[in-house]
Amino acid sequence: MKVYTITVNPSLDYVVSLDLLHLGEVNRAQEAKLFAGGKGINVSQVLTQLDVDNCALGFIGGSTGQELLQQLNQKKIKSDFTTIIEKTRINVKVKANQETELNASGPKISMQEQHTFKTKLTQLTPDDIVVMSGSLAKGLPDDFYFQLIDLVNEQGSQFVLDTSGQSLLDCLAKKPLMVKPNHHELADIFNTTLTTQAEIIAHGQKLQKMGAQNVIVSMAGEGAYLITEDAVYYAKPLAGEVINSVGAGDSMVAGFVGTYSQTQDTVAAFKMGVACGSATAFTEDIATEPQINQQLKRVEIIEI
Amino acid sequence: MKVYTITVNPSLDYVVSLDLLHLGEVNRAQEAKLFAGGKGINVSQVLTQLDVDNCALGFIGGSTGQELLQQLNQKKIKSDFTTIIEKTRINVKVKANQETELNASGPKISMQEQHTFKTKLTQLTPDDIVVMSGSLAKGLPDDFYFQLIDLVNEQGSQFVLDTSGQSLLDCLAKKPLMVKPNHHELADIFNTTLTTQAEIIAHGQKLQKMGAQNVIVSMAGEGAYLITEDAVYYAKPLAGEVINSVGAGDSMVAGFVGTYSQTQDTVAAFKMGVACGSATAFTEDIATEPQINQQLKRVEIIEI
Repeated sequence: MKVYTITVNPSLDYVVSLDLLHLGEVNRAQEAKLFAGGKGINVSQVLTQLDVDNCALGFIGGSTGQELLQQLNQKKIKSDFTTIIEKTRINVKVKANQETELNASGPKISMQEQHTFKTKLTQLTPDDIVVMSGSLAKGLPDDFYFQLIDLVNEQGSQFVLDTSGQSLLDCLAKKPLMVKPNHHELADIFNTTLTTQAEIIAHGQKLQKMGAQNVIVSMAGEGAYLITEDAVYYAKPLAGEVINSVGAGDSMVAGFVGTYSQTQDTVAAFKMGVACGSATAFTEDIATEPQINQQLKRVEIIEI
Repeated sequence: MKVYTITVNPSLDYVVSLDLLHLGEVNRAQEAKLFAGGKGINVSQVLTQLDVDNCALGFIGGSTGQELLQQLNQKKIKSDFTTIIEKTRINVKVKANQETELNASGPKISMQEQHTFKTKLTQLTPDDIVVMSGSLAKGLPDDFYFQLIDLVNEQGSQFVLDTSGQSLLDCLAKKPLMVKPNHHELADIFNTTLTTQAEIIAHGQKLQKMGAQNVIVSMAGEGAYLITEDAVYYAKPLAGEVINSVGAGDSMVAGFVGTYSQTQDTVAAFKMGVACGSATAFTEDIATEPQINQQLKRVEIIEI
């Protein structure tokens, strides 16, 4: 099985560090660096660390797109992006006394460019898994992910759409390989509050019955559940200092999908998902293979 | 005569517009655009508008350097940059309730890269004028401009170093074609206050006697003086709403040097300098040829 990740609106992240950001003034940065950013790209980065056959798809354009591609190449992340005329956006992240972000909306993607991209998906096989995550770029139709899901399903491939709220509910009928709301998102979906383990599991099972093959409910410092058609599993939380929650969700998706693609073992996939999510949360950047394997040894799964 | 402009530390300016910038939050930009920036590049842009034979020199590197080059090509600005390994910096300009800037220090430039650049200057002829302006990049020696001035003088070419304070004083012995302090900078240089016309002219004449071939003293809304070896001229201020003072000084340099390179007529050069400076001050961007010519008709020069 091969995994494809889709990042429709990737970014170059320009991380600028200084002591204090003064509004209305000229500030001098101590350090400034460009990084490739995007949720699907994070997933591909972790998959590459785990040595899972994968390919990053999406749209890139202009000199910023070329820079992004170069950064992926440096990290040995395989990709097959569709080139667009407008430039890949730059998001500015200011690391000062407070962390301030300035996100651009991203390039327009023409009908022709969308068509070129979709054509790639017609080459998928039933052995493939497609992971979609991140915001839609400007000018893409609201139902773009759903158009892609239909294409993926037509080829008999599996898909994961990393989203929440109504979009998550809407995709259930398309039989996603996995959905992964946290317990707050799960409560919001059903417009309720969830306090007990029994309540959380019951509502996770609702998502499963509505079409999700697997439901992971993460609860940050309180572990996570995996709900399958047949069983419920619980992963104990891993002790550690959370340094960075950005990319932890993407890492969990990568861990699950990566191991699933190699073993078709849902519980092993869940275990790797928990290890990857925790490993990234415990480091400043997306976790590396040694960091992931260190956490993997610590994950305990029990059937409930 | 041909004009060369030098921008040792050019930038890609990332101009991000939004209503309000909230510190410590994720802000969404309404618009975000990349522009080529740098004082010498501004001079080249105006020279190109005035159809003056010119070439932009300096250092560019990485994908950001390539983007900068592409932007110059789009504006038909001729250039011969020295390619460096590190990336050209990105400066962020946030246009919100307040204008906030985030400037990066710029790339390191190796000894080999400095050497490659200097070799270009050995090709200059006595018919050439070299304009140097803007901050030094990281790792360049403090006396880098002075090393360049010596090279320029060795070829018998003319130079303009657009600077202030001690650097301005220091370059006088090298006989610059022109220096252009404003009246505040002129007062600072001599650690005094200048209130009357006679005082301003007398101190401008000091700079002339110390080595500057021509001294322009600009006084924003109160016009400007040109002090030559033989005479003093006054340009009346042009009425108009100042929209943008950024680039006005660079435009003045371009106007002076451009017309001087074509006519060797110092007074005509002064007149064009005033027209270009005012035209840029009256518009949002660097002035275009029609805007400059509109102001040129209005400039009145009187000999004092």
